[in-house]
Amino acid sequence: MSVLEVIEKKKHGEALSKDEIERTIAGYLSGAVKDYQMSALLMAIYFSGMDGDEIADLTRTIIESGETVDLSSIKGTVVDKHSTGGVGDTTTLIIGPILSAYGLPFGKMSGRGLGHTGGTLDKLESIPGMSVDLSMDEIVASTNAIGMAVAGQTANITPADKKLYALRDATATVDSIPLIASSIMSKKLAIHGDCLLLDVKVGDGAFMKDKESARELAETMVHIGETFGRKTLAILTAMEEPLGRAVGNALEVEEAIATLKGEGPEDLTALCVYLSTKLIHLAEGGDEKAIEKKVKELIENGKALDKLRAFIKNQGGDDGVIDDFSVFPQAEKTFDVISDIEGYLSQLPAHEVGIISRDLGAGRVSMDDELDMAAGVYLHKKRGDYVKKGDVLATFYGGKNRPMEELARRFLAIVSFSEEPVPAAPLIIDEVYHGH
Amino acid sequence: MSVLEVIEKKKHGEALSKDEIERTIAGYLSGAVKDYQMSALLMAIYFSGMDGDEIADLTRTIIESGETVDLSSIKGTVVDKHSTGGVGDTTTLIIGPILSAYGLPFGKMSGRGLGHTGGTLDKLESIPGMSVDLSMDEIVASTNAIGMAVAGQTANITPADKKLYALRDATATVDSIPLIASSIMSKKLAIHGDCLLLDVKVGDGAFMKDKESARELAETMVHIGETFGRKTLAILTAMEEPLGRAVGNALEVEEAIATLKGEGPEDLTALCVYLSTKLIHLAEGGDEKAIEKKVKELIENGKALDKLRAFIKNQGGDDGVIDDFSVFPQAEKTFDVISDIEGYLSQLPAHEVGIISRDLGAGRVSMDDELDMAAGVYLHKKRGDYVKKGDVLATFYGGKNRPMEELARRFLAIVSFSEEPVPAAPLIIDEVYHGH
Repeated sequence: MSVLEVIEKKKHGEALSKDEIERTIAGYLSGAVKDYQMSALLMAIYFSGMDGDEIADLTRTIIESGETVDLSSIKGTVVDKHSTGGVGDTTTLIIGPILSAYGLPFGKMSGRGLGHTGGTLDKLESIPGMSVDLSMDEIVASTNAIGMAVAGQTANITPADKKLYALRDATATVDSIPLIASSIMSKKLAIHGDCLLLDVKVGDGAFMKDKESARELAETMVHIGETFGRKTLAILTAMEEPLGRAVGNALEVEEAIATLKGEGPEDLTALCVYLSTKLIHLAEGGDEKAIEKKVKELIENGKALDKLRAFIKNQGGDDGVIDDFSVFPQAEKTFDVISDIEGYLSQLPAHEVGIISRDLGAGRVSMDDELDMAAGVYLHKKRGDYVKKGDVLATFYGGKNRPMEELARRFLAIVSFSEEPVPAAPLIIDEVYHGH
Repeated sequence: MSVLEVIEKKKHGEALSKDEIERTIAGYLSGAVKDYQMSALLMAIYFSGMDGDEIADLTRTIIESGETVDLSSIKGTVVDKHSTGGVGDTTTLIIGPILSAYGLPFGKMSGRGLGHTGGTLDKLESIPGMSVDLSMDEIVASTNAIGMAVAGQTANITPADKKLYALRDATATVDSIPLIASSIMSKKLAIHGDCLLLDVKVGDGAFMKDKESARELAETMVHIGETFGRKTLAILTAMEEPLGRAVGNALEVEEAIATLKGEGPEDLTALCVYLSTKLIHLAEGGDEKAIEKKVKELIENGKALDKLRAFIKNQGGDDGVIDDFSVFPQAEKTFDVISDIEGYLSQLPAHEVGIISRDLGAGRVSMDDELDMAAGVYLHKKRGDYVKKGDVLATFYGGKNRPMEELARRFLAIVSFSEEPVPAAPLIIDEVYHGH
């Protein structure tokens, strides 16, 4: 078998064998298979696709390229949630405390943001003193002690995915469902766990722009999860406009705190209650209505907020942020974006808001960019709101040297208005579950 | 414009603009566009194709990447023929002398063989003393003086094609019609000329295995030729079994000489008469029947053979080869392949015969392999012939260390026999011409 034969097979739409997949990935890691050969194969996969067996074999091969993480010393059913990435998506910092308060251990490895999307580790680091550098033992100990830990990856998991992803990013072969699914699932499956909830975002700010491709991605990931014995549920949720009102690191943590105080934006609150309920039901079964009631109680009685406080303290963070947002880093400059149009806000495209937030300093163009923790966008108006001339649409936060007026013009160019009231769009779009 | 946007467009089946094609190729030559990005784009082109404008723009960009060759000092209508490559295809050495004897100047740059196909330069070098290293001035002077010259490329034509072809070869992206057509036509159009005859081979020993894809390639190349103002005619011809009986360098030159003596194999003779007639008609118009008659006369009266003799002498070759084949390099060893089956020979796959000839020393696996000029295969039986047990099917020529018995077993494994007579297959399959 040569890599040329493998490319040729995939070009003609044939399925690759386990052996062919293993040898090709091993060859790629050793350098025997060149970048230009792998990118040709990735493009052939983009066009020809992969069947369930191939995707499972690819996922397994990627997992086996690196270390795996054993969190089995965490007591209880270990649950995990993963979002495919959006704008203003701070759900982990809300769902984690809720689950932990409910009694399910929430020990999680998270990532950093890139491009228009943020990352949980970056958001946490906006809390003064907060550390996300935990050893494996510390993650286990913290989760057992206080019920929650969130850390960066210490182990060298899925190196094949890192190399493949960098190549896909440089060759316009990112948006292939078999490749996205095996990339996400290999990282999730390399870490021990019992239940996995996948929040598959759909819309302007998401990888998947339409419901059909999001559903296909969800089906593919759930199939992989089940193949590897992980209880997996995928929920398709809307990502046309940003989730909540805050986009940016400290701004989103503030919004997560507000949500756990019962004062969060309607959409973010509803989504977190929904996903928490689903994840608890996935782990324990039982009556969903009763679980949902309990979840809401944990917000109302402050128990989830207490968990967030304990979690922040435990990882060295200043828990003063919970009662006083001025403890967070403060932006050098703020700028109000004023509407010059009157009408119902009909479109607020998440992707472009994410880019504006990035350009205010909240995000990265490349992985070594420094972040401004205070930077971002706060949305005073969201889809469906009635806006009058002179109303503040959004407030920008960022450094003095940021081109706020230019970014404001970009913001005004992307929002749309309607004379008629705008009907509400569903937040929860679909669900994919293959278990029983 | 970034290369990622270009790949993305082609991935989604959109046409690339002239500017996008030019910048991408320029970037590839400068190193700004990486091999792995170009191979992803090539694979996207394999799947999405290119329209006529894109193919013309790509061809022009490849031509403009290097020098062009001005043969306009050659007096008269400059004609060229190009074969897409086959096994035993020695037509250039027969058609060249015929055209030259007819009065059309035949000054041509040729190539070398690789894999299962041979190259005209290699064949010529089997003639003792023969040189194919001619300067541009020498090509022009020789063609004006004796009517014929064949040389290697001295100018640095189409460097973009060389770099692209090497990448395609290493990434299984060779068999894309837009890429094949622009590669062939850029090389042809970089050299000044008036008329071009394309012999598009179809079948087992050819790039194009079926008539439909060969016709598509022919249409694409003729369209490019016409776009660039070159009178272009494509003939689809059969390449299921080798052309003629000889495969190998000296063996094929011997067969070309025999053909110009009127003693050549039926298929090779018929094809050369046909292609010569078509090329003369393309250049001068007139009555094809009358041209064909004249062409046959030039063989019968020895005038074409005289041209071959003058051509060999002019480039320093020993013209004694024409009257005495023992002047050619002689093989160290010969080996007769004996049939153990009786019946009508029904299949003699050209590709595999080409590979056997290569493995006898007549061809190259990589471009720096040395050739055995005397090596090759002589086919005593061809498709349709009745074969008895014990008949010699073929004779192998090669070095003492070549595994002749093993190659004989391979040869016996690829030929097929039938109890029923095998109907003749047409040699000329189709014709593509867009002119008037």
